Amino acid sequence: MVQQSIQTTELRNQLLHSYETTRMMTNTLVEPLETEDYTIQSIPDVSPPKWHMAHTTWFFETFILKEYSESYRSFHEEFDYLFNSYYESVGSFFPRHSRGLLSRPSIDKVRRYRKDIDEEITRLINEADEAILIEIADLIEIGLHHEQQHQELLMTDIKYNFSINPLKPIYRELDSIETAKASPIEWLSFEGGLVETGINEGNGFSFDNERPVHKVWLEPFELASRTVTNGEYLAFIEDGGYKRAEFWLSDGWSTVKNQAWEAPLHWENKDGEWYNFTLHGLVPINKEEPVTHISYYEAEAYASWAGKRLPTEAEWEVAVRDQPIEGNFVEDGVYHPVASVKKGEGQLQKAYGDVWEWTKSPYMPYPGNKPLDGALGEYNAKFMSSQMILRGGSCVTSQSHIRPSYRNFFAPDKRWQFTGIRLAGDVE
Amino acid sequence: MVQQSIQTTELRNQLLHSYETTRMMTNTLVEPLETEDYTIQSIPDVSPPKWHMAHTTWFFETFILKEYSESYRSFHEEFDYLFNSYYESVGSFFPRHSRGLLSRPSIDKVRRYRKDIDEEITRLINEADEAILIEIADLIEIGLHHEQQHQELLMTDIKYNFSINPLKPIYRELDSIETAKASPIEWLSFEGGLVETGINEGNGFSFDNERPVHKVWLEPFELASRTVTNGEYLAFIEDGGYKRAEFWLSDGWSTVKNQAWEAPLHWENKDGEWYNFTLHGLVPINKEEPVTHISYYEAEAYASWAGKRLPTEAEWEVAVRDQPIEGNFVEDGVYHPVASVKKGEGQLQKAYGDVWEWTKSPYMPYPGNKPLDGALGEYNAKFMSSQMILRGGSCVTSQSHIRPSYRNFFAPDKRWQFTGIRLAGDVE
Amino acid sequence: MVQQSIQTTELRNQLLHSYETTRMMTNTLVEPLETEDYTIQSIPDVSPPKWHMAHTTWFFETFILKEYSESYRSFHEEFDYLFNSYYESVGSFFPRHSRGLLSRPSIDKVRRYRKDIDEEITRLINEADEAILIEIADLIEIGLHHEQQHQELLMTDIKYNFSINPLKPIYRELDSIETAKASPIEWLSFEGGLVETGINEGNGFSFDNERPVHKVWLEPFELASRTVTNGEYLAFIEDGGYKRAEFWLSDGWSTVKNQAWEAPLHWENKDGEWYNFTLHGLVPINKEEPVTHISYYEAEAYASWAGKRLPTEAEWEVAVRDQPIEGNFVEDGVYHPVASVKKGEGQLQKAYGDVWEWTKSPYMPYPGNKPLDGALGEYNAKFMSSQMILRGGSCVTSQSHIRPSYRNFFAPDKRWQFTGIRLAGDVE
Amino acid sequence: MVQQSIQTTELRNQLLHSYETTRMMTNTLVEPLETEDYTIQSIPDVSPPKWHMAHTTWFFETFILKEYSESYRSFHEEFDYLFNSYYESVGSFFPRHSRGLLSRPSIDKVRRYRKDIDEEITRLINEADEAILIEIADLIEIGLHHEQQHQELLMTDIKYNFSINPLKPIYRELDSIETAKASPIEWLSFEGGLVETGINEGNGFSFDNERPVHKVWLEPFELASRTVTNGEYLAFIEDGGYKRAEFWLSDGWSTVKNQAWEAPLHWENKDGEWYNFTLHGLVPINKEEPVTHISYYEAEAYASWAGKRLPTEAEWEVAVRDQPIEGNFVEDGVYHPVASVKKGEGQLQKAYGDVWEWTKSPYMPYPGNKPLDGALGEYNAKFMSSQMILRGGSCVTSQSHIRPSYRNFFAPDKRWQFTGIRLAGDVE
Ligand SMILES: [Fe+3]
Ligand SMILES: [Fe+3]
Ligand SMILES: [Fe+3]
Ligand SMILES: [Fe+3]
Repeated sequence: MVQQSIQTTELRNQLLHSYETTRMMTNTLVEPLETEDYTIQSIPDVSPPKWHMAHTTWFFETFILKEYSESYRSFHEEFDYLFNSYYESVGSFFPRHSRGLLSRPSIDKVRRYRKDIDEEITRLINEADEAILIEIADLIEIGLHHEQQHQELLMTDIKYNFSINPLKPIYRELDSIETAKASPIEWLSFEGGLVETGINEGNGFSFDNERPVHKVWLEPFELASRTVTNGEYLAFIEDGGYKRAEFWLSDGWSTVKNQAWEAPLHWENKDGEWYNFTLHGLVPINKEEPVTHISYYEAEAYASWAGKRLPTEAEWEVAVRDQPIEGNFVEDGVYHPVASVKKGEGQLQKAYGDVWEWTKSPYMPYPGNKPLDGALGEYNAKFMSSQMILRGGSCVTSQSHIRPSYRNFFAPDKRWQFTGIRLAGDVE
Repeated sequence: MVQQSIQTTELRNQLLHSYETTRMMTNTLVEPLETEDYTIQSIPDVSPPKWHMAHTTWFFETFILKEYSESYRSFHEEFDYLFNSYYESVGSFFPRHSRGLLSRPSIDKVRRYRKDIDEEITRLINEADEAILIEIADLIEIGLHHEQQHQELLMTDIKYNFSINPLKPIYRELDSIETAKASPIEWLSFEGGLVETGINEGNGFSFDNERPVHKVWLEPFELASRTVTNGEYLAFIEDGGYKRAEFWLSDGWSTVKNQAWEAPLHWENKDGEWYNFTLHGLVPINKEEPVTHISYYEAEAYASWAGKRLPTEAEWEVAVRDQPIEGNFVEDGVYHPVASVKKGEGQLQKAYGDVWEWTKSPYMPYPGNKPLDGALGEYNAKFMSSQMILRGGSCVTSQSHIRPSYRNFFAPDKRWQFTGIRLAGDVE
Repeated sequence: MVQQSIQTTELRNQLLHSYETTRMMTNTLVEPLETEDYTIQSIPDVSPPKWHMAHTTWFFETFILKEYSESYRSFHEEFDYLFNSYYESVGSFFPRHSRGLLSRPSIDKVRRYRKDIDEEITRLINEADEAILIEIADLIEIGLHHEQQHQELLMTDIKYNFSINPLKPIYRELDSIETAKASPIEWLSFEGGLVETGINEGNGFSFDNERPVHKVWLEPFELASRTVTNGEYLAFIEDGGYKRAEFWLSDGWSTVKNQAWEAPLHWENKDGEWYNFTLHGLVPINKEEPVTHISYYEAEAYASWAGKRLPTEAEWEVAVRDQPIEGNFVEDGVYHPVASVKKGEGQLQKAYGDVWEWTKSPYMPYPGNKPLDGALGEYNAKFMSSQMILRGGSCVTSQSHIRPSYRNFFAPDKRWQFTGIRLAGDVE
Repeated sequence: MVQQSIQTTELRNQLLHSYETTRMMTNTLVEPLETEDYTIQSIPDVSPPKWHMAHTTWFFETFILKEYSESYRSFHEEFDYLFNSYYESVGSFFPRHSRGLLSRPSIDKVRRYRKDIDEEITRLINEADEAILIEIADLIEIGLHHEQQHQELLMTDIKYNFSINPLKPIYRELDSIETAKASPIEWLSFEGGLVETGINEGNGFSFDNERPVHKVWLEPFELASRTVTNGEYLAFIEDGGYKRAEFWLSDGWSTVKNQAWEAPLHWENKDGEWYNFTLHGLVPINKEEPVTHISYYEAEAYASWAGKRLPTEAEWEVAVRDQPIEGNFVEDGVYHPVASVKKGEGQLQKAYGDVWEWTKSPYMPYPGNKPLDGALGEYNAKFMSSQMILRGGSCVTSQSHIRPSYRNFFAPDKRWQFTGIRLAGDVE
């Protein structure tokens, strides 16, 4: 009993700490914004910053306070409609593509909403009895991982919103410019065989889509020691990459033509020189940096041009899972990938952070997978069609958010995330 | 010489006065807004409030300062691209339908822009020699009339932006609710014949599209003493007005079906009762008020249902031009049409203010009309296709802006302006 | 009584004759087609040839047989749905833009339909008693004018359908190529004043939209002796006509950019030379021929470039109405405009035939105009918005179909009709 | 040497025989069509019958005659542009969605084209020397399998074209109506483990996408003995299947709402009763027949409602590959699925024919897969994104075309093929 309460107290403290830290991180990330920046939505894919701030709050309100708090009173009855993203079983929701048409609630009101819910959650953590505490601990954990996902979107959405503005706003000035050179690519071999990937419950936090551990047969394969650089990608462009159908999937080629793609997103050609729109402004392309803001179609076409292929998600996971989770993350405050420098002979560089790595695996449930019960079952499972898996996290992912089994996913034409390429190959 | 300088001084003072008054009116109208309200654009037809504030400023900068001021330095080189509306001969411009995607410049920066240009214009008025002063006087006058037009759009755009927000923001609370009853319609007869309409230069300010005076033959006609009320329009709705093709132009009927129109814009049906979204919030329909926010198609269909027709612009002008310019204008601070009460036997009521009155006249140049020279020739002339004339001003028009010859014009499907119906008929 | 029966017999014979002649003309025009040509619809504006053939037949069936024939039995119950064009008061109709998706009824079946209805109409004409005969005489007349309108559309629709086929099918080979030179333009002056235009019932056939005679005030004006040639239009193109916004209405300029217009419809540039797709195949541009297949926007822009303007419909009618109705019509079998050669000093050339002449008059009802009663009231009146008047007929109009008061109308962006330009000007 | 020539003669005869048989099958299938039916394309997914007939011919012309025949002369130089479907490396091609806008070439000309190419191919088979013969044998085989694929599309495209016609044309009358009852579903268990699927070259004809044999790990699973019936699917509909988001993938649910789906394609509800548009006309739903014309989204939603799942393609292949290739195929001339009757205890029914069975496997390359060299490498590989695998063939597939390793694929929203559902489940 005494021992239990010590554990309970520890759990309370740990929850309070991670809740406060994660929620504060959101506030830190929006600090450079002006009031007007919180409201706009420059394409349907992105959401206004204030929407992210309210939606992550709505998540705690809806899945925790409404269920477990007696003192809870609805902050505003329309917020359920405005800030539900896509949970059909919770109720109807405001159309996603129109989120940028709403000036109200103002960011001040959204901040009050966050504060109000934060106080309620804090009180609940402090006051819940042990049984409830254990129950809500899981929900708070998922709510915080959810918030971290939206922190990443916040950064890529701000970047996109700024990019289409002729004034080219700067999110944050960079003190110094990185000058490292990327190490040459090495090819690391893996023997494959009947392996296991995925994760089971009870081994730290995981989303339902990463579960369960399951067997996969892999042929021997090789993986590049680092991701493709801007310089390498430029060679593809200069070899007519965007003009030769032969490298492209049929859907990819249609997209290239319809969208008039000639380079990665956020690249701009001025008088024959390529520039890169970054969160620190428009800068000349750095050839040593990992290429980023490319679609699956472009990753696939590049691999085809290079005579290689993308890895499967199982290959990636098997190759990477013994690496330490280190890299260039959102906590580093760079918000841009940096050149990959060799760590040692025959080692994978930058498996985590910098850029998400497209795999050739469509996003499908693992054998034996069970989505969560209730509304949270909609979190991941219903998106399992026509999307591709990405692995490893990026320069705007939280270090505490990523892990070997983590499955990110986007449609094959999306480019506004920090996405890149690590090549793989067959070994005969 | 002495006399001249007195006149010049008077001109200077008068320009300074009207410049300051009109520019300040814009500031007054946006006072109730929150910072976020300045940035949004809920449909392509409307513009963000801060865009109106910057564009009207750009107008003075471009057509006056750039030409006549020696001290003038560009406030921001991109503003020419951002705040040119449609003047092809001035240069390229940011796409109209994307104006709401720009968080920068912030409203603070736009206010500094306004202040900066105001100072430059004031200095120019104060310091210009007599010859220049006379030249810029005309341009300042057109700039101020231009600003008044955008003040009207500001109000209708704010209204539209607010209307689509589930939170139904209120622009300004109303102290008291109007309770007057509309007088019964009387039919006033006019004999027509060979009349003159339009205006010539030198008779007070006019836009180029109102000129010159020209002859028109009119058959005898009659005009309703007041505009159609909500109550009368409701009878049209209840008689199946939006369900019976027989009353509608072919394009109008397609629009009714494609847009699923069932009532004027800003009407909402809750449990069988009609409500009206106004700048003071959502209120029950007042049957005595003039119906507003209807398209030309609806005006035409209503007239057809009522066995009447819309007037031509020449009929309207001939009938109205001896009336005093009185009515419910933006200066009255009501921002909504009010019931029309009889002024005296056989008199036209509310020819000005309250609601713009659709005419059956397509917007075309008058015989002998000459657009202005230079870029300002684009102000009006190039829009002369597929638009219909409206007359009389509305509850968000400035009293000093309207006159008998004033020609407003919109495409026949537009409804977000304060537009209404005055019926006409043939007299045999 | 005896005298009456002679008149009746004459009326019967005359109706039989014109019915047979006009209906046969349709058959003659489709003779060069292959079976597959009858079914396609290459853009929503055009209709499949077999649809025109069935719809004109449906017109007689619906407005005459259903009302007046006792022996009439419906040929096929679905035909009312399939071949009603736009008469809302008759019933619902198959969507216009999908007419080309229907392989059935086959053209054989449509021919049987035509034959069946022709027999019924013929029997009705032969057997109707005098009172009925007089009643149906008007309806047959309108039905035949309707058929003539569709004969014109048949030709322009076939031309469009053929034009988009890479095989460039030829409708009919031309025996010889015309080589005449266009006469120089002369400017003919007209004094204007208070004139009358339009027509009253009882003065030969007219559509309801041409009625009644009404007064119009005209300032003095001048009219070009002939229409603009390809050579003259080419000078406009070569002077940057399609690249300089200054000449264009705002809607026109948008259309130029959105549709990537660089020349009239059916012009093709191969290695720097302009070719013209005609009903006799692809031929080099003949500079002497009237320019055709241009929109109102292009006509207006050309006039602006030329320092002139388009005539109003009243100016056109007043200037032309004393001319004989002569010209290059569908009966001539050329199906293409030919060079305009001077007839005599100070004479208007080619007022009729060759190309429809855009006027600057929007299509609106004349003062005192009354549409027909019943469903036929939908024939013209409901299209009176956002369309412009054309006058004079074209090389695929029937000579017996055109007259001074005839009002054709199309939206200002349409180009697939044989449309051209006659310039006008003010006379001071 | 002698022996070789006997083998060569045999090969020649066998090629002549299969070429003639397969090509003739196409002619047989189009026999019921009227001339107009050959030209239309009612949605972008379908192609006009004459296009299929010409494109399959172009395939032989392009990949065999152009390469191997000395006597070959191009039949028509534009046909390469018109009848290339999607081979970028062959050259440009006419836009797919506009195939129905071309009346020419006429079906007569297309028949002459087929005849001409047939004669050339026959001559080549007869006259080629042994080395060439062996080379072209593979190409002819792929050309004939290609033709069989288009025969299937021909039938589903004709069905779709007919379905949207209000006249509801009948492809072929049925002599008698099937009345069998579907046997109850049995669940057959399979143990899984490390299995091999796919096929290697040299084991009869296969497409490149079926190769090579490769290892896959399968958990134990069960498979339904037969496919889902109309009756079972109706229960899903009546339980609100199309109105409850909970069963659907997110993309599927959007499609249901945007397309207003309420039932499978070709189902029609008249006065509360469901009818099925078939190639023999509109008939009441037969509850015993396999449900067909459903999308992957619907198959997945049904499985979710039923508490089961779809099989993977590896599960399907392992379970089915020892079954005889028997069933209801295009050769049976029924062109519609028929009720599935039990063959014996614990046996899979109807693994082949009737309806293609959606699997939950996205269409991706097998490990170690190599597309064909040259233009034929575009046949399959470039479509490997955002499509799902179907297995087993349908009632309009040729019996000689299908095999255990055969991979069909369509986007998850497509419904115009004869597609159905066989449920699977996990076995614990
Ligand atoms: Fe979320
Ligand atoms: Fe403006
Ligand atoms: Fe018609
Ligand atoms: Fe093909």
